[in-house]
Amino acid sequence: MKACAEDKLLHALLRFVPIPKNQPLGPGDDCAAIKCGKPGTLILLKTDCIAEDIHFLRSHDPAKVGWKALCRPLSDIAAMGGSPAEALITFFSPPDIDPSYWKKFYRGIGRAARQFGVTIAGGEMSRQKSGIAVSVMLTGHIDAKHLLTRSGGEPGDLLFVTGQLGGSIAGHHLNFIPRLKEGQWLAKNTYPSAMMDISDGLGSDLPRLARASGCGFEVHRESIPRRKGADIRGALSDGEDYELLVAVPPKKASLLQKKWKATFPKTRLTQIGALTPPQPAPPDWPGGWDHFEGPPKTNRRRERKESQS
Amino acid sequence: MKACAEDKLLHALLRFVPIPKNQPLGPGDDCAAIKCGKPGTLILLKTDCIAEDIHFLRSHDPAKVGWKALCRPLSDIAAMGGSPAEALITFFSPPDIDPSYWKKFYRGIGRAARQFGVTIAGGEMSRQKSGIAVSVMLTGHIDAKHLLTRSGGEPGDLLFVTGQLGGSIAGHHLNFIPRLKEGQWLAKNTYPSAMMDISDGLGSDLPRLARASGCGFEVHRESIPRRKGADIRGALSDGEDYELLVAVPPKKASLLQKKWKATFPKTRLTQIGALTPPQPAPPDWPGGWDHFEGPPKTNRRRERKESQS
Repeated sequence: MKACAEDKLLHALLRFVPIPKNQPLGPGDDCAAIKCGKPGTLILLKTDCIAEDIHFLRSHDPAKVGWKALCRPLSDIAAMGGSPAEALITFFSPPDIDPSYWKKFYRGIGRAARQFGVTIAGGEMSRQKSGIAVSVMLTGHIDAKHLLTRSGGEPGDLLFVTGQLGGSIAGHHLNFIPRLKEGQWLAKNTYPSAMMDISDGLGSDLPRLARASGCGFEVHRESIPRRKGADIRGALSDGEDYELLVAVPPKKASLLQKKWKATFPKTRLTQIGALTPPQPAPPDWPGGWDHFEGPPKTNRRRERKESQS
Repeated sequence: MKACAEDKLLHALLRFVPIPKNQPLGPGDDCAAIKCGKPGTLILLKTDCIAEDIHFLRSHDPAKVGWKALCRPLSDIAAMGGSPAEALITFFSPPDIDPSYWKKFYRGIGRAARQFGVTIAGGEMSRQKSGIAVSVMLTGHIDAKHLLTRSGGEPGDLLFVTGQLGGSIAGHHLNFIPRLKEGQWLAKNTYPSAMMDISDGLGSDLPRLARASGCGFEVHRESIPRRKGADIRGALSDGEDYELLVAVPPKKASLLQKKWKATFPKTRLTQIGALTPPQPAPPDWPGGWDHFEGPPKTNRRRERKESQS
């Protein structure tokens, strides 16, 4: 299965640097997981970022941009089944932005931090010549026995998604609730074999989970739950869903669905397909957002382009 | 003593967010220090950043920029007396930069990581419309009993700096060695009452240490060790020195100087002044680099400007 340009670059870059050894999880999953000296507990480490005109516009309410900046890495902590702890906020401020922008932005950070039990342990600020950019680093913790990665899936495991996908740009991307409760509950009850958050779109993220698990996948596209106004293509490629993608062994699936309904009656959990033995993605499978390749293309178009270059 | 615009903004922003409680150290020092569940050990958390045309130029060797990106927060870990552990690298890449830039940059990150015992546990990449920007988050650890902060100084403590100050722009800012060994040795031998790294220039950073310690300061400007080509003003205001500023109780000072010479024969440790009871900074005391106020001004000029506005 082909990796997208961003994943290929990441893979190339990691060859130049030492990565953690004798640790449960290094780069390449939603978070890194590091032993902390307390037996049975792991520290989760995550960094995420947003840039003007890529993830938000100057015209958006800065408090909502702050909310988004912190909730994005919270979604990654959720995808490991973890609980968040401390955040560090780094921002780059262009000359045409004044301190009042950052005060509003921090109100949004504060709102999210209080709601999800995060404290702000530090930060850094710098001028840059143009455009607002923000990086958020987040720590978390999890019982080692509950850690959920992308790589635990097996052929035959059923694939579920929480909530609805697509059309995030209409508003969801600025006010979503990271699936922390759901992720913690799934991890604690050991239903999933693998889990990740859907941030670049199912089109990019499902192949990542499948590849990490050494599997292929099949999806019933009609069954993908879509946000109002989104078509199937949008549900696969729009990105910024911040929902959980969960692989579940078949024997656990019916109990999971029953218990889920009782625990989260307002949130959908939809079976969309299954992991398979390794196989290429369907030829018309669309990618999601790729920072080093531009807008989504189908594999077929991408392959045509690659064969020309 | 007046805080600079950047410190004032930081102070204002922190009112909007929850900060760590029941933890040894939250925002406002070189690093945060957090209990990790292992008695006697603290985790250090630091984020730092560099932006094109502020901290480096497009024409600089990307490997040296990578070295700098990681060594800057290493200097903060050094200032606590700590040992570094994992780094997370976030970069913002404009359309006119291609992946080869980032490969060279990561070579520099890798070189620094291997030299100082850091592993790269994760990262994030995003497009942005213009300019390169990088944020590095770094963890570290330290025995709780050796933690060194900015706030432990007392009136009468003598002030020392390592190495030489000023003129960093000629090359030092891209190839400096963070003072990890020196910081760890100072902390372990409990010589200092307070310590910080000098990154914005002594002009900004000494008032920060004095303020955090509830003190004033006096400095013999002629005694400040200067890098080749730097005048006194440059030694105070150029910034990017990445040296340690150390406050030492008078009774420990002569033993420190003797032991230092034996341990670090090639590195200067120079007494430059002392902490005093609280008092305003000298009227002609220059600031250092301030991301929200522009180039350094003397206090006198700054006060004149403020009284007009």
